[in-house]
Amino acid sequence: MFSSRKENQKGKETYRLEAFSDGVFAIAITLLILEIRIPSGAELREGLLTALLNKWASYLAFVIGFFSVLVCWINHRHVFNHIVHCTNKLCIINALVLLVVTFVPFPTAILAGFIQTSDRQTAVALYGLTYFLMSAVYKFLWTYAYKRHLTDSGADDNYLQAIKKIYDIGIVYTLITLIISFLSIPVSLVLYAFMFTIYMMPSTFANKLLQFENRNK
Amino acid sequence: MFSSRKENQKGKETYRLEAFSDGVFAIAITLLILEIRIPSGAELREGLLTALLNKWASYLAFVIGFFSVLVCWINHRHVFNHIVHCTNKLCIINALVLLVVTFVPFPTAILAGFIQTSDRQTAVALYGLTYFLMSAVYKFLWTYAYKRHLTDSGADDNYLQAIKKIYDIGIVYTLITLIISFLSIPVSLVLYAFMFTIYMMPSTFANKLLQFENRNK
Amino acid sequence: MFSSRKENQKGKETYRLEAFSDGVFAIAITLLILEIRIPSGAELREGLLTALLNKWASYLAFVIGFFSVLVCWINHRHVFNHIVHCTNKLCIINALVLLVVTFVPFPTAILAGFIQTSDRQTAVALYGLTYFLMSAVYKFLWTYAYKRHLTDSGADDNYLQAIKKIYDIGIVYTLITLIISFLSIPVSLVLYAFMFTIYMMPSTFANKLLQFENRNK
Amino acid sequence: MFSSRKENQKGKETYRLEAFSDGVFAIAITLLILEIRIPSGAELREGLLTALLNKWASYLAFVIGFFSVLVCWINHRHVFNHIVHCTNKLCIINALVLLVVTFVPFPTAILAGFIQTSDRQTAVALYGLTYFLMSAVYKFLWTYAYKRHLTDSGADDNYLQAIKKIYDIGIVYTLITLIISFLSIPVSLVLYAFMFTIYMMPSTFANKLLQFENRNK
Repeated sequence: MFSSRKENQKGKETYRLEAFSDGVFAIAITLLILEIRIPSGAELREGLLTALLNKWASYLAFVIGFFSVLVCWINHRHVFNHIVHCTNKLCIINALVLLVVTFVPFPTAILAGFIQTSDRQTAVALYGLTYFLMSAVYKFLWTYAYKRHLTDSGADDNYLQAIKKIYDIGIVYTLITLIISFLSIPVSLVLYAFMFTIYMMPSTFANKLLQFENRNK
Repeated sequence: MFSSRKENQKGKETYRLEAFSDGVFAIAITLLILEIRIPSGAELREGLLTALLNKWASYLAFVIGFFSVLVCWINHRHVFNHIVHCTNKLCIINALVLLVVTFVPFPTAILAGFIQTSDRQTAVALYGLTYFLMSAVYKFLWTYAYKRHLTDSGADDNYLQAIKKIYDIGIVYTLITLIISFLSIPVSLVLYAFMFTIYMMPSTFANKLLQFENRNK
Repeated sequence: MFSSRKENQKGKETYRLEAFSDGVFAIAITLLILEIRIPSGAELREGLLTALLNKWASYLAFVIGFFSVLVCWINHRHVFNHIVHCTNKLCIINALVLLVVTFVPFPTAILAGFIQTSDRQTAVALYGLTYFLMSAVYKFLWTYAYKRHLTDSGADDNYLQAIKKIYDIGIVYTLITLIISFLSIPVSLVLYAFMFTIYMMPSTFANKLLQFENRNK
Repeated sequence: MFSSRKENQKGKETYRLEAFSDGVFAIAITLLILEIRIPSGAELREGLLTALLNKWASYLAFVIGFFSVLVCWINHRHVFNHIVHCTNKLCIINALVLLVVTFVPFPTAILAGFIQTSDRQTAVALYGLTYFLMSAVYKFLWTYAYKRHLTDSGADDNYLQAIKKIYDIGIVYTLITLIISFLSIPVSLVLYAFMFTIYMMPSTFANKLLQFENRNK
């Protein structure tokens, strides 16, 4: 019905959505350092070096949290390399992605803090549940954008469908890993690490999937 | 009197105002997670799972706060889809919007923390007052931009006036809901939830209003 | 000696400097809300309403801090409306501006926390010192940009010189107000409020100065 | 294999990577102020002025931290003035840079807090280790971008190689300074201050290196 000159400029439509999202990702990833506290008081009884070394679980949580948020940002960037139009609903669905992203520091800190306690089962399950939700919201985002033709019209449709498939795989993968975590925590942790490695390169993953499908035609 | 080449580039004028605002929105929405603290000490007496479940009010505050800030961002984006020129006064009025936005986490946390106590009346009133102010600053922003012709000259004037009307409705709605909250808290909470749903899609709302008016002409 | 294609695109040169600065301003202005803490424990003895009303000094600090950072952002935006080229030294001088900006929440919180105690003299002096430094770094920034011809070549030189003058006035004004604060705190606070009102509209201020000079020629 | 219209626009490819990075730098640099706490309780026994003066180590940490992050941002901006294409791997390597950057506030706070204690050796070593890692990730980033021809094709290749050399020097310099810190802390601190001064102006450094090489040919 109505369209402003601003909105019609192709490639600028998603600008503010991406800028806002980048802000959220940047803050979520930087806030993680606040969890590593300067050693003080009793912690320093055996000197600073020992105190710093004793904080290894905090450093691990920092690094895991960093890469957890990073893999989300890389996928966000990848997906929005192909989404060029923006609707109000896209903003809302994108917000669901950001809601899960801003939540990530919490389950990550829980994971790092309780992996050595008898509560490790709950900690791993909470982490797994978060990444199951993450897969679900990314799939929702991409499915909506693809169906509503918000993607670049010049793009290879096979590739766009491959993106859809990698998020379908994501949902199944995170669900299975969540179930496995109740059987064996170490196996589930290895599976999460493997998943991050794969989704750290979404375009490579989607292209490999395309090649695999073409070979089997 | 004076105009730089930079300022004359249409569509770039509002760039920094939007970038700065996006930063503020992104931080306000991400800081909310800091309110969900890792369970420790006595909280863990019955295990991590119970401790996590007991924190349901924190999660609710996180989600309410997230959507409270989101609805403001969506309206900011919508309004600035139609504002293409920027004056110094627009920056100041926009800052009033941001002032209320950065304040949002406080009444949200109060609401979540006191809704189950005898102080719930005060908590709901503070939340309601904040959203009454929010409506007022958005109306102020749009009225100024419209009167000073800072909007896109190619835009449909009926639509621009419909935007004005949805913020008029917002002021009346939030004022009435604030008064109702002193009579019945549950009713007022339902009214706030309904309001958020409507204002989550400001362009749909404005278009529906236009259709309604055209039908009744 | 060397110039990349990217650097040569006029108007894009200062892009990252502005984006980075906007991020710093946005965070500095949003962090202020963290200083308003949810009332708890003994604070709540007389109910939530009383506890909230007792926090008036926190709200005042929030609002003062907000407008203190805002006036800096508006001046930054104004100055960079006219700066179109970027050098490495400009980045460093701009960083001095940001250093003072990120410091602002500290003297503001001190001012709000100690204005009713016998330490008010120190609190006002720290605040005044911060704004004297702020004037100095802005003057430094503009003088450097003007001398090195980093400003828009199509701009009216009289206007550019008027900008220089408003920051000269700023240094003298903040220095005098700092001295006055040792004689009368209320007078100095009124002078700071007046200063903020003027510098909230730097282009109006500079234009008025131009008109005044033309009349007196 | 696949390329969207968006990705093909030269100079826009690295846009989101730079925006996300700017967000991270801006937050890392602004969070530092949170370490300077408002004096309270026993700190105020001798008045606010004394309490403020006693916090000199906090101010020093704030300023050191600020310039530590700033020098990283300036080098990031310098490097990305010459990188115009973006690959997924570049995003990951860039994330390693950001990982070290977000970590900077921690060793800086440790340095400021322990430089006057018997633990100063550990504090300086942690700081030195961080800047050794920083050099290493910057070298990694630039080497990758140069080898994969992600740099501007119109750029002077000698200059691009000079950039490579300044990061080679950085690795050696930070490693030697780290070793020296075990022999003499004051000498190592002077060497870090000198290093920051040099790397605050990476283009000047690279150009001087080019001139030096040309003279010695």
